[in-house]
Amino acid sequence: MNARRVAYTGARTLTVEKVEQAEVPPLGAGEVRIDVAYTGICGTDLHVYHGAMDARVGTPAVIGHEMSGRVGEVGPGVTGWQAGDPVTVMPLAWCGQCPACLSGQSHICHRLVFIGLDAPGSLQTGWTVPADTLVRLPHDLPLDHAALVEPTAVAVHDVRRAELRAGEKALVVGGGPIGLLIAVVARRTGADVLLAEPDAYRRSVAESLGLAHVDPTTEDVAAVVARWSGDAGAAVAFEVSGAAAGVDTAVEALATRGRLVQVAIHPTPREISLHRFFWRELTLVGARLYDRADFETAVRLIADGEIPVDTLISRVEPLDRAAEAFEALESGAGVMKVLIDCQAEEGADAR
Amino acid sequence: MNARRVAYTGARTLTVEKVEQAEVPPLGAGEVRIDVAYTGICGTDLHVYHGAMDARVGTPAVIGHEMSGRVGEVGPGVTGWQAGDPVTVMPLAWCGQCPACLSGQSHICHRLVFIGLDAPGSLQTGWTVPADTLVRLPHDLPLDHAALVEPTAVAVHDVRRAELRAGEKALVVGGGPIGLLIAVVARRTGADVLLAEPDAYRRSVAESLGLAHVDPTTEDVAAVVARWSGDAGAAVAFEVSGAAAGVDTAVEALATRGRLVQVAIHPTPREISLHRFFWRELTLVGARLYDRADFETAVRLIADGEIPVDTLISRVEPLDRAAEAFEALESGAGVMKVLIDCQAEEGADAR
Ligand SMILES: [Zn+2]
Ligand SMILES: [Zn+2]
Repeated sequence: MNARRVAYTGARTLTVEKVEQAEVPPLGAGEVRIDVAYTGICGTDLHVYHGAMDARVGTPAVIGHEMSGRVGEVGPGVTGWQAGDPVTVMPLAWCGQCPACLSGQSHICHRLVFIGLDAPGSLQTGWTVPADTLVRLPHDLPLDHAALVEPTAVAVHDVRRAELRAGEKALVVGGGPIGLLIAVVARRTGADVLLAEPDAYRRSVAESLGLAHVDPTTEDVAAVVARWSGDAGAAVAFEVSGAAAGVDTAVEALATRGRLVQVAIHPTPREISLHRFFWRELTLVGARLYDRADFETAVRLIADGEIPVDTLISRVEPLDRAAEAFEALESGAGVMKVLIDCQAEEGADAR
Repeated sequence: MNARRVAYTGARTLTVEKVEQAEVPPLGAGEVRIDVAYTGICGTDLHVYHGAMDARVGTPAVIGHEMSGRVGEVGPGVTGWQAGDPVTVMPLAWCGQCPACLSGQSHICHRLVFIGLDAPGSLQTGWTVPADTLVRLPHDLPLDHAALVEPTAVAVHDVRRAELRAGEKALVVGGGPIGLLIAVVARRTGADVLLAEPDAYRRSVAESLGLAHVDPTTEDVAAVVARWSGDAGAAVAFEVSGAAAGVDTAVEALATRGRLVQVAIHPTPREISLHRFFWRELTLVGARLYDRADFETAVRLIADGEIPVDTLISRVEPLDRAAEAFEALESGAGVMKVLIDCQAEEGADAR
């Protein structure tokens, strides 16, 4: 056993540490230790890496929440799970008592704990989580593919929030991993999808997935959408760019009664044309995270081969090279999703 | 017959003109001439009066669209209507061919003509409109009350867009005529309603209608809403103020998955906390105008005595005093809704 973890100790600093058996506390009631297989790096992890979330995560911190693995050990009182079960984790812990929880919206609990930010994450070989966060995986689902369940669940949730219907036109603004997953999930509902993305590499990935795309730096997206939709506009726009210009593009592209799903995080307020919302009776829908049904849908979509996981996984790096993986992702060039192989044994394959 | 009209000829200038029989063209196919009884003055009319909409209305212009009257004469091809029928008008003409019209949203037609702004309005004794804009009134409904059908239809539409349910908490931001009508219609659905309004007179009207109210200049509305809702926040907020601060108040007051209905016109973009929309999965819903079902609901509500029309009608002025009526409304002090008595005969009662 070669237990290790990646410690974030400050801006742009990740250290791989050996974990001594003696420092691992015994499992508490209801807890499970997972032997982590893969952990994907997401935009929020990169935000932590940049030092922007130190106040929230503390230092040192173990981050990571897009993962797959197998149950290693179950704590007292845990039923239904046994060592070896392939799993992923829905990384949310809620209070069960706030108005959101009491109204059935526990995924947006007022005191939500996001595991991997507010509690230790999966960038380690052994990860202890509450058993009720486990989501079962099919035995024949490759675990690298399964590391994409969490971001796929985000996309499933976003498309569900849009109430997207077959035959509708959907514009996705932003073609990173979440944008592409939303485009794929939206297309699967029978919608016509158009992706707006300035980066040529990301557009080439969209192209390889058979998705129509437009470069907002050289084309007027609203005009392209108008031609595409017979002057009606898009029924739905997903704002996944996080940029002020992306919001404007989405608002301008929408048809009367169109729905704008706000997926990206905008840390500062944005100027919005409320007049346009009024004039065209638009709807803006906030979408955050997912619930268990979204996770289960995501597992099924990946198991059924509906998600182009091989195209989306740009590379897999061993745990010891976590720092290099973050650097590669930060540069952004030619990289979509990077996974960290967190398996305890040496010699896990990289590609 | 003493035919007259109120001509808007430029900022703050209204002139009452005698209409000679010779200058009235014969009715075209599908047209109806209404003997106007009452015309209410709304915020948009006041906006025209201030000179802010000259490019849209042109000068001279006859404005006005909140009205009641009786059919005076029917043009060729008009069936189902006869002289003397009490009516109001849904002042919209749509193209029938744009994407909005083709998707059943003709009230937000891309080429919508709003009669009373884009075409002559009802501040005259005889008003010619397409017969398909007529909405039938019960014979026993007082015509001064019926002049409130149009703003009531706005409120009905807004509450419908909110999908407000019994038992939900609804905050109305802004207590002018539309805000009060929304509050009354919302309360009738079984919602708990709270009105935020800085003006003491408007709050006193709310008080007289049995509506809970709060002064946003002396109290923290979000804190009041938190106490009122057991820390959950409001399920629905109606933004009727048109002020940037009103938008902030509405966003802050909303519960998780809360719906913000944008009623007021915000001519300039507003800074919106998209993060709050994301974090709490809020929804922003634009609401504009009404459709025929909203008008028919409004007629029924007024006929059933569900709308406090006597409280809302502050005064009725004869057509000859239209200029004074606009001035009184502009001062804003102690005035809710002002009606202009457009009946051709002299000596119509004022109150
Ligand atoms: Zn909670
Ligand atoms: Zn139209």
